[in-house]
Amino acid sequence: MSAKEKIYDNEDDEFDGLTAAELEAQHPADAADSIEGLDIMDQVKFIKQLPIKDAADSIAEMEDRDQTLLIQHLNKGLAARIVEQMSPDDATDLLEDLDEDLRHALLKRVPEEERAELKTLLTFDPDTAGGVMNTEVVILDQDLNPDQAIAKLREEVEDKEIPYYAYITDLKDRLVGVVSLREILLAKRGLTLKDLVKTQSLITVGYNIDKEEVAHLIAHYNLLALPVVDFGNRLLGVVTVDDVIDIIHEEASEDMQTMVGAGADETTDSPVVFSVRKRLPWLIINVINSAIAAYVVHLYNDTIAAMAILAALMHIVSNQAGNTGQQALAVMIRQLAMEKFDRKKAWYAVFRELKIGMINGFLISGMVLGLIVAFTGDFKLGACMGIALIFDMLVGSLFGASIPLILKEIGRDPAQASSIFLTTITDAVGFWSFLGLAGLLLL
Amino acid sequence: MSAKEKIYDNEDDEFDGLTAAELEAQHPADAADSIEGLDIMDQVKFIKQLPIKDAADSIAEMEDRDQTLLIQHLNKGLAARIVEQMSPDDATDLLEDLDEDLRHALLKRVPEEERAELKTLLTFDPDTAGGVMNTEVVILDQDLNPDQAIAKLREEVEDKEIPYYAYITDLKDRLVGVVSLREILLAKRGLTLKDLVKTQSLITVGYNIDKEEVAHLIAHYNLLALPVVDFGNRLLGVVTVDDVIDIIHEEASEDMQTMVGAGADETTDSPVVFSVRKRLPWLIINVINSAIAAYVVHLYNDTIAAMAILAALMHIVSNQAGNTGQQALAVMIRQLAMEKFDRKKAWYAVFRELKIGMINGFLISGMVLGLIVAFTGDFKLGACMGIALIFDMLVGSLFGASIPLILKEIGRDPAQASSIFLTTITDAVGFWSFLGLAGLLLL
Repeated sequence: MSAKEKIYDNEDDEFDGLTAAELEAQHPADAADSIEGLDIMDQVKFIKQLPIKDAADSIAEMEDRDQTLLIQHLNKGLAARIVEQMSPDDATDLLEDLDEDLRHALLKRVPEEERAELKTLLTFDPDTAGGVMNTEVVILDQDLNPDQAIAKLREEVEDKEIPYYAYITDLKDRLVGVVSLREILLAKRGLTLKDLVKTQSLITVGYNIDKEEVAHLIAHYNLLALPVVDFGNRLLGVVTVDDVIDIIHEEASEDMQTMVGAGADETTDSPVVFSVRKRLPWLIINVINSAIAAYVVHLYNDTIAAMAILAALMHIVSNQAGNTGQQALAVMIRQLAMEKFDRKKAWYAVFRELKIGMINGFLISGMVLGLIVAFTGDFKLGACMGIALIFDMLVGSLFGASIPLILKEIGRDPAQASSIFLTTITDAVGFWSFLGLAGLLLL
Repeated sequence: MSAKEKIYDNEDDEFDGLTAAELEAQHPADAADSIEGLDIMDQVKFIKQLPIKDAADSIAEMEDRDQTLLIQHLNKGLAARIVEQMSPDDATDLLEDLDEDLRHALLKRVPEEERAELKTLLTFDPDTAGGVMNTEVVILDQDLNPDQAIAKLREEVEDKEIPYYAYITDLKDRLVGVVSLREILLAKRGLTLKDLVKTQSLITVGYNIDKEEVAHLIAHYNLLALPVVDFGNRLLGVVTVDDVIDIIHEEASEDMQTMVGAGADETTDSPVVFSVRKRLPWLIINVINSAIAAYVVHLYNDTIAAMAILAALMHIVSNQAGNTGQQALAVMIRQLAMEKFDRKKAWYAVFRELKIGMINGFLISGMVLGLIVAFTGDFKLGACMGIALIFDMLVGSLFGASIPLILKEIGRDPAQASSIFLTTITDAVGFWSFLGLAGLLLL
């Protein structure tokens, strides 16, 4: 084959300057980065050299897109053994991204017990607690004493990812409490686990709760893991804090990117075509929206023809109101991202933004009025600018603050294209108020 | 005193509908929210009723601004006892926000040992690993066997916040390894801790590393805690994952808000005057910037006077390029926030954005050209729009993607006012290219 192929056969087994041994010695998270940087054929070759467990750990840390591509290029037997070695939540994430045929082919090759578990996990919506939970949980009998609990933990702990909490269930598998290793270590002799959890107010989530809500709860209560239960309060699994960090990162990217009509899940590694597909629809909507604002200008063609300077100045009005609105928008979207939604508090925050817009509006319009009068000596022109500015800045504050809330209330993503809609409003209102006033006062 | 005062003296001791007992039974994070909702005099009254430890836990969970205000209203003796009961990192955060006199007064009342520790912690820059670390660390002797280690942990664990890792140091206090409770529980009899950490590649950070970098490391390696060391590799403390969640939240808010010139630390709870102060300077810069773009329009007064429709259409060009640039900007800022900075990769991402801008530019300009010709029959006008659009959209992609990198390279916050500067460029270039072309081709 090509020159590239030759590299695979050289003695050192070098991958992009690293030897296989060096790559293997890396932390799985670093190995994942290194693997992502390799050519796909090199990726396959490297994975084949790794112990299965190391391969599974490294692949679990790869970006979704790279992970899918790599699994598609492995032979199905190896891919299935890797899936089997992954923690169930990572395996589910991976399987979800594969096409149905490959998913079935891999599941068929996984031993019965793991297969049943993975199939159950695959039924949960990936954006809910059930979709991100880990099922490897240490469950302890409520009648154990602390020493027995530690002995039991020592037996159980081997296969479980994060055993910093153990869960206490009753005879019907219902969750009755959570103990941390810390509490077990601290517990007085003579007590049983039941005694430890007696007065506990247990924090749990239903499996169908949105994962962002789960992230809020874990952040709010500083938890390392949060138990996920079904409607009968039976323990299904736990969401761990490391998954929550990923959720918070994703959420922040989504908000920032969808606000201006980029894709929620775009990164600088996304293929160009992927990004074009995500952004183009919003750019088209933006053309339509700016055509609306342009139409408002068009209505005042005669005014502009009579006094062309207005075309320059109208831009200052709309731009300023747009910026004011975006400041309100950013603070509101972050508020919605970081705290549990509180309708009363949220609408009060709109009122707060109006006050800020009012004060900044007065100060900026005063400044602009002064500058216009100083430079042109035309007080009427300054007054038109000043009045239009403060009016449009108030409109910007009002809509910047309320667009995310309106989107939220109608069940949409509070950030989605909010900046695009805001700018349409501030542009149209700015052009209309300034050109309208100018037509009345100046001509 | 006033009617308000009366409430304090009624029998139920009700606070905003909750009795003191109900408030006290809440999780500290919820109690903090409830306290923040109370009048400051009610806050003081409630805190006085709580056991000191509960008061400290709840106050530690409050927002910085509310926390400061409450401490200022407590008598110094009580405030000092609360500070003493807090974990050292929370106490340091609180003391940092107080004015110097009050800080000294409280420190003077804290017992010698805690005072020395707090004074040391206060010397670290609050935005670094040293500034966010917790000093309550479990340190174990490297010669212990697992059972001895567990026995020692049981003794030590009482005062320590998160004992999920224990740290192994040598005789000179240098860090030689980290063991998780999991590893201790799993360890074979006959081994010592030294054997457990022998082949470990230890992940640590220097105390002067930026806290966002610390957050990246913890997220990248899925750690629960990361040890902080001095230049001699002596263990100073650990940064825990719950603090990292706060750092990631703060970072996301900062990026989104400073991008449009709102304050990095504004929330919907900030006083109006605080927000006005943060935003007004950027609004003033935005006036200046939009005046520059307006000046470009002004240069083409004659062109506009001759053909007023241009004033409407130029807005579509600039708005479209602005949106294109903002999409690139959002993706780049998120990239810088989520990954370790990689100069080569970052500049390659600019190239990627140029390709996206090129494709979207062709498609959008083609569409706009078609629409203009369809509606006005004026091919030359359509061509002016199309050419200016694709040119300005490329400019938007280039600057949207590179402004954060340029800011980063000169040591500034990559997000700061980036949207404001971007819009100035896309507006000015859009007006210049469209009006200039129109002047040449149409008049």
